[in-house]
Amino acid sequence: MIQVNLSNIRPFIGLPYEAALAPRLHIAHKHLQQGDGVGSDFTGWVHLPEQYDREEFARIKAAARRIQSDSQALVVIGIGGSYLGARGAIECLCSANYNLKKKNTPNIYFVGNGLSSDQLSEVMELLEGVDFSVNVISKSGTTTEPAVAFRFFRRMLEDKYGVKGAARRIYATTDRARGALKSLADSAGYETFVVPDDVGGRYSVLTAVGLLPIAVAGVDIDALMAGAADMMTVCAADDMASNPAWQYAGARYELYRGGRKIEILASYEPNFRFMAEWWKQLYGESEGKENKGLFPASVEFTADLHSMGQYIQQGERHLLETVVRFGASAHENPVPYDTANGDGLNFLAGKPMDFIRQQAMDGTLLAHVEGGVPNIILQAGQINPFTLGELIYFFEYACGLSGYLLDVNPFDQPGVEAYKKNMFALLGKPGYEDLRAQLERKLGR
Amino acid sequence: MIQVNLSNIRPFIGLPYEAALAPRLHIAHKHLQQGDGVGSDFTGWVHLPEQYDREEFARIKAAARRIQSDSQALVVIGIGGSYLGARGAIECLCSANYNLKKKNTPNIYFVGNGLSSDQLSEVMELLEGVDFSVNVISKSGTTTEPAVAFRFFRRMLEDKYGVKGAARRIYATTDRARGALKSLADSAGYETFVVPDDVGGRYSVLTAVGLLPIAVAGVDIDALMAGAADMMTVCAADDMASNPAWQYAGARYELYRGGRKIEILASYEPNFRFMAEWWKQLYGESEGKENKGLFPASVEFTADLHSMGQYIQQGERHLLETVVRFGASAHENPVPYDTANGDGLNFLAGKPMDFIRQQAMDGTLLAHVEGGVPNIILQAGQINPFTLGELIYFFEYACGLSGYLLDVNPFDQPGVEAYKKNMFALLGKPGYEDLRAQLERKLGR
Repeated sequence: MIQVNLSNIRPFIGLPYEAALAPRLHIAHKHLQQGDGVGSDFTGWVHLPEQYDREEFARIKAAARRIQSDSQALVVIGIGGSYLGARGAIECLCSANYNLKKKNTPNIYFVGNGLSSDQLSEVMELLEGVDFSVNVISKSGTTTEPAVAFRFFRRMLEDKYGVKGAARRIYATTDRARGALKSLADSAGYETFVVPDDVGGRYSVLTAVGLLPIAVAGVDIDALMAGAADMMTVCAADDMASNPAWQYAGARYELYRGGRKIEILASYEPNFRFMAEWWKQLYGESEGKENKGLFPASVEFTADLHSMGQYIQQGERHLLETVVRFGASAHENPVPYDTANGDGLNFLAGKPMDFIRQQAMDGTLLAHVEGGVPNIILQAGQINPFTLGELIYFFEYACGLSGYLLDVNPFDQPGVEAYKKNMFALLGKPGYEDLRAQLERKLGR
Repeated sequence: MIQVNLSNIRPFIGLPYEAALAPRLHIAHKHLQQGDGVGSDFTGWVHLPEQYDREEFARIKAAARRIQSDSQALVVIGIGGSYLGARGAIECLCSANYNLKKKNTPNIYFVGNGLSSDQLSEVMELLEGVDFSVNVISKSGTTTEPAVAFRFFRRMLEDKYGVKGAARRIYATTDRARGALKSLADSAGYETFVVPDDVGGRYSVLTAVGLLPIAVAGVDIDALMAGAADMMTVCAADDMASNPAWQYAGARYELYRGGRKIEILASYEPNFRFMAEWWKQLYGESEGKENKGLFPASVEFTADLHSMGQYIQQGERHLLETVVRFGASAHENPVPYDTANGDGLNFLAGKPMDFIRQQAMDGTLLAHVEGGVPNIILQAGQINPFTLGELIYFFEYACGLSGYLLDVNPFDQPGVEAYKKNMFALLGKPGYEDLRAQLERKLGR
């Protein structure tokens, strides 16, 4: 279970807000549950942990086993929601150093999420002499970054294994029926998985989009889904007292309304870094429209207490902090005793690292609240697939509620088109000639 | 050279500000050059690229060669300024996948920058059967995170090589004369390098603090220093037209004054991620005090155009964006031609990746400016040690100026003590008994 502790936002909120906000949360909640709010075409994720396609789920596990057996590496091609969830979950559950570790599962390389030429070359170099497979993830198959990357890695596979051999190593996660990638996959004979029509990219980590790479890394995806299903039941509660998503969404909304403009997501686990990136997309893309929305930022403590810590403690007072705390670590690591005690730390000798971390968390909490930063604590269980499934669903559900509280459509991303359109025009894509001429004038070319 | 392009902030600034700001920049500049402003005890970095200790520099290179010859891994123990600069430079110049790559230099693991027990165990596991050395970096030797980590890794070394053998593999970067680590190093016979008294942590990457790990990774640190020295000369110019640091500091100050509260540092190179973290410490810790300062955030494009892009395009209009652009990539990677052209991208076939990236940069620039986000472009050269040296000095110098413009001491970090003090008290450190009782009451323990 996830516990939302709001006692450290009280000093920053004048009056009780829960009673006033509950009716609005109730409406938002009903919209999510019944799929009848703004953007409701994209609320398939709400009941997903219960209603997912079992047959496809079994195929995902079978494909993961096949990749594990015939590949030393999996290249995952995708951007945005087709990238961050899988990377976040793998780093969180298996380590940010996953690829470095000795293990009996393939290395996983994420590509097609940018346009760096040198990064592309580097991954191609890392694959030299390595048996690998590709999971290309794109609803349409025409998004520039992944589509370009797929051209490179498909060619590599075909050069290495021949066209037919390559086809057996390419797994396409794409539209159920339409689109460039679906057509190609059908004609070339790639195994395909579905990006559901009613689940937007940033809510898609628990579909094949995230599940295939996560399963290849050896994660128990049954447990991941079970955690999400569990949280789905919890989040179905229609009241503030028993619904942690209501509590989180309500608190951050109230703080935003009171002038907090930035939400910093903090964690004390370095392996959480990319889950925070996933969270940033989820909230930034859902809320950041119509000139509204908390700006989502993230820090990794205690490292960043020695970088962003100063600002958080004493900079502009426009911050709120949400801290994800996990249960006990897998390793105890009592601090070694040192006869000389030059560092003066023998008072910690024999204490487990978790004890020190706990005091750091509590000490930081009190310091930041004292410094004027409201703190929301999200207490999760030990890091494992079940807990992460809970956390993912919790954040998704609270995000849907948050968008509705803010009176925006939490499921579209109209602003993302602007750069794409400009890029297409400047690249000389047929059909964009007028815009191109306009933009080139602006650029003084 | 670094070119600061400010043409995309003009639409957001009503009147020319340069003439009004120049006299204040002149004063700030004189304070930095003459070392007579607030916090001037910590301006040793200003002339460092010219005045550094050549004898020690030679010892750093010799130590790096020794580590390269007798170690397959280097464990770097440090936090904050004793961590981010080295990691940033190594990732930027050698890749974020440095440890994964085939190479003839040691793997480098950064530890002691947090309190995660599982991360600690993981690095210890990665070191099993591996010859390694340790570079422990701490001015005092008593900062909790690195001091605790050092206890673990020193023990590992001593168990493996004996006390004397371990001593030959430990390199201490610490105070010139005083402190727990200096005493221990002297009595145990570790080779030591100096954290200068007049250079604060976040400005220390070009001292032994950053240089030893960077050199171990095989980076040409002569070129790094040469780039910094070059930029030092450029930044010595006492006028807006020829000093890029004046231009950058002036523009961001003016935008901040006009209501921009968040500066997003963007780059199109994934390997720049940790240089952005270094930059966040530099600016956040220098400016974030007295309830002032731009909140520093970072994004990695184009990946984050598919996550934070929506917010940047259409969210709250409190943002400014600073984009670091680098020169040509090392690899060309023309896009493969595809007869079927299912993705419709044959209009890009044969075009190098850099061409596509360039259009993405320009298209994004126009989109974000159109959306209401002022953009500062920092055009640097190709990524190499010289360029990075330039960039580091440029950012440092502009940061010193920025602090003075803001009327704060850019070289202290009084707020960082708050969490440390609370943590010490809660950990039961002798001498903190009263505070401990107070805090435990607050925590309801």
